Amino acid sequence: MVNTFIINQALDMHLHLRDGDMLKLVAPLTSNSFSGALVMPNLVPPITTKEDLLAYKQRIIQASKDDNFIPFMTLFFQNNYTFEFLQSIKDEIIGIKLYPAGITTNSQTGVSSMDIEVLRTTLENMSKLNIPLCIHGETNGFVMDREKEFMPIYESLAINFPNLKIIMEHITTKDAINLLDKYPNLYATVTLHHLLITLDDVAGGMLDPHLFCKPIAKRPEDREALLNAALKAHPKLMFGSDSAPHPKHKKECCGCAAGVFTSPIALQVLVELFEKHNALENLNDFISNNAQKIYGLNLNKKSIKLIKKDFIVPNIYEYKEEKVIPMYAGKTLLWSIDSIEK
Amino acid sequence: MVNTFIINQALDMHLHLRDGDMLKLVAPLTSNSFSGALVMPNLVPPITTKEDLLAYKQRIIQASKDDNFIPFMTLFFQNNYTFEFLQSIKDEIIGIKLYPAGITTNSQTGVSSMDIEVLRTTLENMSKLNIPLCIHGETNGFVMDREKEFMPIYESLAINFPNLKIIMEHITTKDAINLLDKYPNLYATVTLHHLLITLDDVAGGMLDPHLFCKPIAKRPEDREALLNAALKAHPKLMFGSDSAPHPKHKKECCGCAAGVFTSPIALQVLVELFEKHNALENLNDFISNNAQKIYGLNLNKKSIKLIKKDFIVPNIYEYKEEKVIPMYAGKTLLWSIDSIEK
Repeated sequence: MVNTFIINQALDMHLHLRDGDMLKLVAPLTSNSFSGALVMPNLVPPITTKEDLLAYKQRIIQASKDDNFIPFMTLFFQNNYTFEFLQSIKDEIIGIKLYPAGITTNSQTGVSSMDIEVLRTTLENMSKLNIPLCIHGETNGFVMDREKEFMPIYESLAINFPNLKIIMEHITTKDAINLLDKYPNLYATVTLHHLLITLDDVAGGMLDPHLFCKPIAKRPEDREALLNAALKAHPKLMFGSDSAPHPKHKKECCGCAAGVFTSPIALQVLVELFEKHNALENLNDFISNNAQKIYGLNLNKKSIKLIKKDFIVPNIYEYKEEKVIPMYAGKTLLWSIDSIEK
Repeated sequence: MVNTFIINQALDMHLHLRDGDMLKLVAPLTSNSFSGALVMPNLVPPITTKEDLLAYKQRIIQASKDDNFIPFMTLFFQNNYTFEFLQSIKDEIIGIKLYPAGITTNSQTGVSSMDIEVLRTTLENMSKLNIPLCIHGETNGFVMDREKEFMPIYESLAINFPNLKIIMEHITTKDAINLLDKYPNLYATVTLHHLLITLDDVAGGMLDPHLFCKPIAKRPEDREALLNAALKAHPKLMFGSDSAPHPKHKKECCGCAAGVFTSPIALQVLVELFEKHNALENLNDFISNNAQKIYGLNLNKKSIKLIKKDFIVPNIYEYKEEKVIPMYAGKTLLWSIDSIEK
């Protein structure tokens, strides 16, 4: 029986850190155990200038309180980013994140058209400069079909920009998994919660706002496909929590915001999940090595030792006025973080 | 242009009236305009004896404050109801409602198996006594498939009990509509909200607990099939609001209860919907005549005159400590109830 497990240089390749007191609350919950995280740029207003980007990075470093933690910064996609601008910011970013306008939290200023000709200037410049493209791939169709309907757009981007690394963010469907093997320049992140839940968990019993997220959790066969790809550490698939803190009152009020907060439990639950499926030998690939290879990252050493010992998930995380409810609040997990070696 | 419309003897063939102060709050919101309603028996504990049934009927009559309103009572299905018991209660009920155990609000004591042999005693006695069977037809499968998965059970019941009138309650799928034409003894009710919303309205934007219901709203093509059948007043389809008041705090708390409260707006919205689709000439069939024929009802005269005049839906309905939020709270509807003639 396995009783300890070591994760080396854990990476969260899709993370929302927000800003202000919320940043101060959530940043340490990731930086403490993870070696790095790809940080989403959808603040209000979004990060579209070098000045804003560097200032935000500085605030993250201050809030994260761990010199061994690297925030990998992203820029918010806009049409007509010039070659010169992208060249000047290239060394400060890991990629550029594209949101269709209005598709999720703070995406109002995203692109209003996915027409390749409209996007071409920026994409060609990114391609020339080897800047990866991270995409929130959903149409504005019927909620269960939004990702599936986006597949032809992924395909068209992959074909038209063969030298562009394209990351399908937080994939939720069997269709997206299938696409990974079809185009050499398509990659993906998958969240913890989409490995665990389906729409049943959100709306099958009582309605659970804390499991409401975008993209919405899909069907059992979709979760199965995602889980299988993660457990075998498909080399083009990376862990990205999409951990998205929303203030408690915005989750529980009438008309709740989309996002699941998983940062403080992700490692423990992943070890439990991979152990259950006899796939622990693949976990370091899924949570670190794949992303290192795909993005070409250099990281400081940081080993996390997990042990099989009950961990009771806090009911709430708070800092000043900010209160966030994590996934599995109050539940007991089988694994705990024992120690972290840097 | 149509500016007035008369509904005669409106019937709500699937209604939750609850008990106590909640009954006092919601009963008049139906009895005021409707001529009758089929009342669900899923109180806590459920209605399974003649004594409880008659006492509940009496409380409903008192709360409804309208001598022209008839509460059509139902019994909560149990295995092994004897012929003698059913014969003794036959004249007091319009049908018996079957719930699979745990499938929705207050259904814990429903049947734990849909095996026909287990259900046979009660069903044969009902069949001999011409007592209709009303069913909440959902399996405990994946939330979007629950009704579809129940179709073979409906078929098996229809075939095995050819003389039993079987009403598929609050249908939400194209599959259920298709089944109506396949068996002479299958009928259905459909709610107002399932003619209007899909899963998109519940979880496509922000999460809307007030539109969360069981069965959950399905796909656009399902709504289309339901709406088409209603607009042409399919003779085996009846209006049943499934209006289900839950206290405000149970809808907006974390983990909200399932049910949409539509009684006070149903007639106005139905007129608007049928007018929009040029189907007003079928509305009286859908909302009254079909049910009268299917159940063989005798009703007092009650005409409701609706006029095209803005109606602002109240934000809340309250009585003592009970507070309920209606569908379309605070919105403006195009039609109002002008007068009611008895």
